[in-house]
Amino acid sequence: MSLTLYYSPGTVALSVHIALHEAGAKFETVRLDFKAGEQNSDRYAAINPKGRVPSLVTDRGILTETPAILLFVAQSFPNANLAPLDDPFALARMQAFHVYLASTLHVAHAHKHRGHRWAEDPAALAEMTRCSSEKTAECFALIENELFDGPWVLGEHYTLADPYLYNVARWIEADGIDSMRFPKIVDHRQRMRARPAVQRALAEQGLD
Amino acid sequence: MSLTLYYSPGTVALSVHIALHEAGAKFETVRLDFKAGEQNSDRYAAINPKGRVPSLVTDRGILTETPAILLFVAQSFPNANLAPLDDPFALARMQAFHVYLASTLHVAHAHKHRGHRWAEDPAALAEMTRCSSEKTAECFALIENELFDGPWVLGEHYTLADPYLYNVARWIEADGIDSMRFPKIVDHRQRMRARPAVQRALAEQGLD
Repeated sequence: MSLTLYYSPGTVALSVHIALHEAGAKFETVRLDFKAGEQNSDRYAAINPKGRVPSLVTDRGILTETPAILLFVAQSFPNANLAPLDDPFALARMQAFHVYLASTLHVAHAHKHRGHRWAEDPAALAEMTRCSSEKTAECFALIENELFDGPWVLGEHYTLADPYLYNVARWIEADGIDSMRFPKIVDHRQRMRARPAVQRALAEQGLD
Repeated sequence: MSLTLYYSPGTVALSVHIALHEAGAKFETVRLDFKAGEQNSDRYAAINPKGRVPSLVTDRGILTETPAILLFVAQSFPNANLAPLDDPFALARMQAFHVYLASTLHVAHAHKHRGHRWAEDPAALAEMTRCSSEKTAECFALIENELFDGPWVLGEHYTLADPYLYNVARWIEADGIDSMRFPKIVDHRQRMRARPAVQRALAEQGLD
């Protein structure tokens, strides 16, 4: 199976990059320069008309949306045991965590710098930026207090919920949020940082 | 398997309600009065601390997030053939469609009346409301032009992407969007309206 991951450093594509290494997949990567607007180029529109990353190009076609790509990685490399594939309830719990990150936490985070997706007036954009830290922090608090089973997100077994949480938890300080409020998430982030698949993806993206 | 769906009329819970009928599931429903704030009550916080619907209470625990619940329904009732369960790529395409609705279209729609999730200043909320129709319309345009294979969302086979699209497409007129821009979506909506599972869910929620 031929796989090519389109990513940009600092985005949610890191979770898929880590997942592919955890799976032992062979894949190519293509880096997009978001500051140069490459995600909005005609060339990339043919890959993903939404102008977002990650996109995963496969022999069958192109996949988008992080929770969908993570499910595809888990199901395509079942021996890597990255999701509870034989248990519909447990798999749905993993998907619910992923969709919460995609549709609530990531959206709150995006209001800091990407308010133009939802408004035009500069004063409204400034207000979104002002509120973003606390709204995003509320999402991390829900994870810390309600959604994180420990030692891994979904309990005893490492799953793809772990790289996805790690990915967004890397944003905490830059989002102006006090990480001391979330000891479980910070501890998880440190343990994730020690995994070879994580170190490899970070190195390939040129990240610390 | 005991199943209880928490819903409120006019919300995205309709898609799960339809899906359960398409699956032939036996289930109970509990209606929440959003105008009375029941979604934020202590009693409901024990079901779903996010204060949202749908929630599906099962023997194993509680599931939230529409794309996760729809996957659970499809996998729990495989004979109903509501998703391409044996094809990881096709299943991921379905999940990608669901996550696009949850994290992009639904979020654009929510800026019309629920801007308080992301800002506090009344002028900013008014600006979000002002922009919401066109931002939501852009999502329907992407579906119409790029994501809708026809005759069903994912092609020849009816899947749970169909009730989910039907659910959000019911909002078009109330969102101030000209439905004439989206002939495929409107035709799909009319065909969905004729399905017995849809009619049953609408009747149980007291909807037209």
